Amino acid sequence: MNDIGVVETKYLPLSEMGVEEIVLESGLTFGPITIAYETYGTLNEQANNAILICHALSGDAHAAGYHERIGHKEGWWHNAIGPGKAFDTEKYFVVCSNVLGGCQGTTGPSSSDPKTGKPYGIRFPVITIGDMVQVQSYLMKHLGISRWLAVAGGSMGGMQALEWTLKYPDNVHAALVIASTGRLSPQSIAFNAVGRNAIISDPNWCNGDYYGKAIPEKGLAIARMIGHITYLSEDSMERKFGRKLQNKEAFSFDFSTEFAVESYLHYQGQKFVERFDANTYLYVTKAMDYFDVASKYGKGSLKRALSHIKARMLLLSFSSDWLFPPSQTQELVDALMANHKDVTYFDIPSSYGHDAFLLEVEKETAIIQRFLEASHRLWKEGK
Amino acid sequence: MNDIGVVETKYLPLSEMGVEEIVLESGLTFGPITIAYETYGTLNEQANNAILICHALSGDAHAAGYHERIGHKEGWWHNAIGPGKAFDTEKYFVVCSNVLGGCQGTTGPSSSDPKTGKPYGIRFPVITIGDMVQVQSYLMKHLGISRWLAVAGGSMGGMQALEWTLKYPDNVHAALVIASTGRLSPQSIAFNAVGRNAIISDPNWCNGDYYGKAIPEKGLAIARMIGHITYLSEDSMERKFGRKLQNKEAFSFDFSTEFAVESYLHYQGQKFVERFDANTYLYVTKAMDYFDVASKYGKGSLKRALSHIKARMLLLSFSSDWLFPPSQTQELVDALMANHKDVTYFDIPSSYGHDAFLLEVEKETAIIQRFLEASHRLWKEGK
Repeated sequence: MNDIGVVETKYLPLSEMGVEEIVLESGLTFGPITIAYETYGTLNEQANNAILICHALSGDAHAAGYHERIGHKEGWWHNAIGPGKAFDTEKYFVVCSNVLGGCQGTTGPSSSDPKTGKPYGIRFPVITIGDMVQVQSYLMKHLGISRWLAVAGGSMGGMQALEWTLKYPDNVHAALVIASTGRLSPQSIAFNAVGRNAIISDPNWCNGDYYGKAIPEKGLAIARMIGHITYLSEDSMERKFGRKLQNKEAFSFDFSTEFAVESYLHYQGQKFVERFDANTYLYVTKAMDYFDVASKYGKGSLKRALSHIKARMLLLSFSSDWLFPPSQTQELVDALMANHKDVTYFDIPSSYGHDAFLLEVEKETAIIQRFLEASHRLWKEGK
Repeated sequence: MNDIGVVETKYLPLSEMGVEEIVLESGLTFGPITIAYETYGTLNEQANNAILICHALSGDAHAAGYHERIGHKEGWWHNAIGPGKAFDTEKYFVVCSNVLGGCQGTTGPSSSDPKTGKPYGIRFPVITIGDMVQVQSYLMKHLGISRWLAVAGGSMGGMQALEWTLKYPDNVHAALVIASTGRLSPQSIAFNAVGRNAIISDPNWCNGDYYGKAIPEKGLAIARMIGHITYLSEDSMERKFGRKLQNKEAFSFDFSTEFAVESYLHYQGQKFVERFDANTYLYVTKAMDYFDVASKYGKGSLKRALSHIKARMLLLSFSSDWLFPPSQTQELVDALMANHKDVTYFDIPSSYGHDAFLLEVEKETAIIQRFLEASHRLWKEGK
């Protein structure tokens, strides 16, 4: 069977490693922290086959396999992680953890603050992509890994992969930055800001203290609906929905959900509020807004920032992605080339928009497999 | 002085023309109806110099001149209407009216229902672009005009201009369809749907009965913020805001409004709720969603639909408009050409996105002046 089977999420309290608090990029100290993570495959003796997978905005540690039983709750990148797949678990030891600030097991705003016994809410500190990566670095040590063969991710996961190469250049042999960017454009910041505004405007939000009460589900659903528009391309929307009506032949001349695309967005909004925490949405989108490698590592110069990278780089963009368009990946590629870095870039033709990184598996698989094999070989050759 | 001076909005109750009710495209009858309108310039004796200007989603009858005193409340297309301007009021008699369903003087959901003495709210019937145009046709008669020299508009105004050429082909000599479309794409429907959802989710909305009470300003502001993102191009946002922070040097690590683009959107949202009715937003966006000339006039064929047009056509699109992209105008142009219609098309290079139709006045002026002059000459020559 070409998959991983049943897996379990594990939990690592950093206090077990003697880490009670960490210093965040804001300057605040914060703790205690627990990391939720999953692993697939086996770490080899040389510990040179470990790959960290970083998830996107709405993802979690459950990247592959099933929870509880076969067929039950498939991991979010199931089609890319497993025996013979892009991230081949027969060859590699694959790790995925929920990000700091998340809501699926790693400490976040919905976690209980030991000082008060109540969920943090917005007393949780504002975090950055760098803070997420710092927390992952403890997991790396805990697993007996001193250097990742690769760190990989799509969208916000790609930001983490890029951040790894800059924050811990000696601990990353290769990085896969997929459908991502070195900084959010003002348009992306604007979409995030409107989504947060919708959550904060929901009277159920109660300044973040809604746990155990009615949740700000209307605001969170609106944020998710906005997000979904940006994940699809105009072209894919046209083919998937066009101007089709949902279960009717003619206009109803009222304000019910009429068009198929409306119905899809409503459904996505509703599904999301059942599984995701509104405060996490605020924190994680804010971390994305703040992400800007040129500013953080290069005093405003992308070329200077990326000069610090030691990892081999694979960058993938998708032609119809308008959230993180190919031009933004091209900027990264140009800056890497200007620094004579080992960089491979493909702009994959696709009509799926930003979602393509989860859907164009066939096209990605061959590229990723080749890149990982070469990276592994080079490491073994000491290069 | 190169402008119109102080103007006043006039009001026409259709009952004065003996019209108590009209039949809407939904099949419902509705009345009474009052039209708010303004006129600039003078109708000539032959009544062959009248131009109808149709406004976009958030516009009104006040297209040019000032209200109350010079410098006070400039009309929304002031830079295009006036002596020597694109729509030259020395030559033409220019008319603009607020649409049916609007909130600036023409009967809409905030108007008082004479049967109850209370505002209609969502008891107001769902209307179409065709219904808006039908109401304008009574204004045409009232003004002693049997045929417009031209009907012109941008965005939703362009939809009305196009609808005029199909609903009343004998009453339109020329039409100017600017930054518009023959049908909303699913992406545009999606943005409208999310905006409506934000309004309806605001607890102050109260099923539309919020008049005289707290208004659903948070929901309406969110809808407007989403709209504004779609009116700007990625490029213009990059140049206007980039990743600049608003009045600060460094991240504040909280959820305050930080980026300049966030601040701009908040400001636009706040300004809008002071002047616009949330229910009108629902009705007018719904009318836009329903607009589809191929379906309404061509049994699904755009070519067949546009075969009924008798007017000379000028179509303008703007290269960076991603809300109603040039490709959608090109579809209209192709269908007009296939019908051997008199059509002129310019895709104007601009980085302003959809907003360009209000901003690229210099580029538009020469094109519009030439088109109107030729149209006027042809009419006088009986062609």
